[in-house]
Amino acid sequence: MPTPEQRLKELGITLPEVAKPRWTYVPAVRTGNLLFLAGQIGVEDGRVMHPGKLGAEIDVARGAQAARGSALAALAVARQQLGSLDHVARVVKLTVFVASAAGFGDQPTVANGASDLLRDVFGEEAGIGARTAIGVAELPLGASVEVEFVFEVK
Amino acid sequence: MPTPEQRLKELGITLPEVAKPRWTYVPAVRTGNLLFLAGQIGVEDGRVMHPGKLGAEIDVARGAQAARGSALAALAVARQQLGSLDHVARVVKLTVFVASAAGFGDQPTVANGASDLLRDVFGEEAGIGARTAIGVAELPLGASVEVEFVFEVK
Amino acid sequence: MPTPEQRLKELGITLPEVAKPRWTYVPAVRTGNLLFLAGQIGVEDGRVMHPGKLGAEIDVARGAQAARGSALAALAVARQQLGSLDHVARVVKLTVFVASAAGFGDQPTVANGASDLLRDVFGEEAGIGARTAIGVAELPLGASVEVEFVFEVK
Repeated sequence: MPTPEQRLKELGITLPEVAKPRWTYVPAVRTGNLLFLAGQIGVEDGRVMHPGKLGAEIDVARGAQAARGSALAALAVARQQLGSLDHVARVVKLTVFVASAAGFGDQPTVANGASDLLRDVFGEEAGIGARTAIGVAELPLGASVEVEFVFEVK
Repeated sequence: MPTPEQRLKELGITLPEVAKPRWTYVPAVRTGNLLFLAGQIGVEDGRVMHPGKLGAEIDVARGAQAARGSALAALAVARQQLGSLDHVARVVKLTVFVASAAGFGDQPTVANGASDLLRDVFGEEAGIGARTAIGVAELPLGASVEVEFVFEVK
Repeated sequence: MPTPEQRLKELGITLPEVAKPRWTYVPAVRTGNLLFLAGQIGVEDGRVMHPGKLGAEIDVARGAQAARGSALAALAVARQQLGSLDHVARVVKLTVFVASAAGFGDQPTVANGASDLLRDVFGEEAGIGARTAIGVAELPLGASVEVEFVFEVK
């Protein structure tokens, strides 16, 4: 069975750089066997991916891409913290915040952009976590999606 | 002193079925002695309980009932994961997301619908957790309340 | 190196009283080495600090003060639970909920009001946690900022 790092290679995925925090936080904190990550926003070419609101200027497909971008950013942070993604024992929890215009209720499909990537990298057993998806008023920098993650470490 | 399963019986409560996830998540993940649950939405007869927003079409009493429905769903998940609610050591944390129209500020009373049920089932000592209650723009499927839970397991 | 309690004294900070919960929750739950705190709202003279929304009646400076008030409330809770802030091993996680009017995207600067205080009290190594900052529709009692905290305990 391929390891997460091997799967990432097979999927042809190159992880982004970990952004240097511009405010007072760190990208992740390990406590015991848990790794708590800061909220992640997908960035491409130095810009927030697909800014705007679901149910208005951003459709579900682009929202899911933004969520996938959050998960890629999370993988980059986890690798930086642990040395290798092969030290992730399992995905514990995702909290997916979706900037939502009035009446938008498909946060779960947007959130799948992040969850599906983690499943592909860590496998069905270890890669699918518990999850909460909610619609929020506004996100930092006008992002459409922000995701926080808890991983178990081995 | 009655156990949680006995209290549930005394209260005349039958737990709902655990919904099969329609997206990429699992209902709960155990890591060490913590059980992280996915966000729970109360469902009755296959339908979301009391959809809509607090401060608009849903009043506080019905919002509290929806929150209670979230807690019942959480108990069903915990029993499925652990075999029995008697393996729950204590309620650690609730995060209560309340779909809120402009100007609605009574999220805590809505949240009590979930917290009061857990207190009744697990008792004053073990059943009252730390809690955050906030008002959000939109919830999946138009729900008025979604609650996530962290339980300690024995 | 001064301890957190000594730093607090040097900074001339007196912590507020821990508010007696008016709903069904406890201010904090310890499980293993983790202390999960209830969502904290800054209070001054018995009143919510700076109620309102960022991007409307509350500017970033006052929002950051409200976030600082949340952190002071959290320190009071942690001291009450642990006997002394010197038993906090490190700040693990902050989730900062900022009541945000349409178009407001500077939640991170508001959140710094809480994070900067924790850094000043616990130091650069132990005092800076992972963090999520999001904009929400409404907060309890019309508050502009609510923050939840996870601390590691020694």
